[in-house]
This record gives sequence, C-alpha cells and structure tokens, in this order.
Amino acid sequence: MTQLKLPALDPGTVEERRGSLYPEPFRSRMGDRAKRRLGEACSLTRFGVNLVTLGPGGQSALRHWHTLEDEFIYVVDGELTLITDRGEQRLTRGMCAGFPAGVRDAHHLVNRGGAPATFLEIGNRIEGDNGFYPDDDLMWGFDEKGEYPAHKDGRRY
Amino acid sequence: MTQLKLPALDPGTVEERRGSLYPEPFRSRMGDRAKRRLGEACSLTRFGVNLVTLGPGGQSALRHWHTLEDEFIYVVDGELTLITDRGEQRLTRGMCAGFPAGVRDAHHLVNRGGAPATFLEIGNRIEGDNGFYPDDDLMWGFDEKGEYPAHKDGRRY
Repeated sequence: MTQLKLPALDPGTVEERRGSLYPEPFRSRMGDRAKRRLGEACSLTRFGVNLVTLGPGGQSALRHWHTLEDEFIYVVDGELTLITDRGEQRLTRGMCAGFPAGVRDAHHLVNRGGAPATFLEIGNRIEGDNGFYPDDDLMWGFDEKGEYPAHKDGRRY
Repeated sequence: MTQLKLPALDPGTVEERRGSLYPEPFRSRMGDRAKRRLGEACSLTRFGVNLVTLGPGGQSALRHWHTLEDEFIYVVDGELTLITDRGEQRLTRGMCAGFPAGVRDAHHLVNRGGAPATFLEIGNRIEGDNGFYPDDDLMWGFDEKGEYPAHKDGRRY
C-alpha cells in the first residue's frame, strides 16, 4: 500500500502511548493499554480521537463521568465489556456507546477476554471539564498550576 | 446477541437516512449514500457521529471545507477515495483522515469501487460554522430563518 499523506493517515504510523495521569494504585489497574492519538496527529483541536488497544485485563479508564465533555466509543476489533450503573454489556466489533456530558452514569470498558481488543474513543475538549469516579477515592483539584489528583477528602496524592 | 441498551448501541438498530440539504443538481451527485446518526441516538450534542455507507459511485459530500468545525473520518469497511487539493488517495479499512477547522483544503470521499464502503464521520458542532465548495457554484446564505443555498453570485437556489 502506498504511504498515506495528511490529511489521510495510517493509524499504524502513529506512536503508541502507554501510561496514565492517575496516581497509584489506580494507574496500574489500567493494565495493558496503548493509545494512538489520531486526532492530534491530524492537528485536530476541537475534539480528540484515540485508537485504543486493551490487552487481556486492560481497562479504558477508571469508571467515570464528565461534567462538560461528550464521549463516544466504537469497537473496531475484539470484544469488550462496558460497565455502567445499569450493569455490564458485552460489546463486539461494530458496536458503540455514547456518554453525554453531565449524565452521572459512570462508565468504562474492560477487556475480560483472552485476546486484545481495539476501539476508537472520541471526546470533545472543553475548558473546565471535570471527571468524577464513584467507585474510587480519587478526584481532581485545581490550583494555579492546573489540576492535581486528590483523595475525596481533599488531600493531594 | 443480547440486545444492547443505552448508553450502548448496535448501529444496525439506528434508522438509515438518505437525502441531502443540497439543492439540485448537487443532491443527485451524492448517489447511493445512507447515514445512521449514532451520536444523536446516544443523545450527544457536542459533536456528531454518523456511520455512513456509500454504494458504488456514492459521495460523502461535495468537496468542501469548514470554517469552525473539525472533521474526522475512519474507514470501517471497504475502500474509498479521498480527494483533496493534493489529489487522490485510496483509503482501505482502518485508515483515517482529519480535517482541522479553517484549513482551506477541501475534501470529500468517493466510492470508486464496485462494492459498498462504510466509514465513521465525526464533526463538532459550532454555531456560526460555514462550509465552502471550491469546485461548485454553491454557498450558504444566512437570513432570519436560518441558512439557505445560494449561487456564488448570491442568488438563491
């Protein structure tokens, strides 16, 4: 295949990023998770598009909801479990889910299978957005340097 | 497969929409094009996500660029030709393209093959966005009722 040139892009040419902004013990819980920032690679600024691969046991994020940002996911390959307040649903290739801003139904994807699974995650970018985590002792505080992870009683991690 | 419940969604359960806001002779040029509004089906408002299927000869849109909206496309199945100012590129399953707001490189996707092709199109929603069509005698005017299609000399279609 001829190499694509922007504005077209082969996701395989975009760097895989691992790691997380969460403090421990949350960071390790994400497991085998690699993201390719496709939107950024195309110079988009209004919303982000990541192609995310979760190995067995990997998680998309802590279960969370956003105050100001819509989110959408589309399963490209493999099988994932979506966990929300209403319980668990199995998402196979071609299935999707959408999470409107401000709806307090926390969500995440977990790979419970034995093979990697890949999905697209899309979120718009809004200054002042916050995320909340009903299952975990984590929240984000804001000071003059930006946001920082804190316990729910306010102490910084 | 068990039926999915929101916030999860099987795109196959979302109504297919055909048609276009373009006046003739442009509307007919879109050919065999069906869109499923996945973002709207999940109650998203910050950005739109459509699953679009183009039959042979179908087009995603007239070649255009947006003033205020970022756009992103991801090929889910089949093969499409991306046409921009720099020429044509062939996009196969898993390839993508991104179009930052305000970049005057007009773009569209055309199905030049003999089989249907499907892609996701994502665009954020910004009040006051406009689209321009370098190849065609079409622009959008705005009056107190909203936008209307016009010739480039200003006459309404």
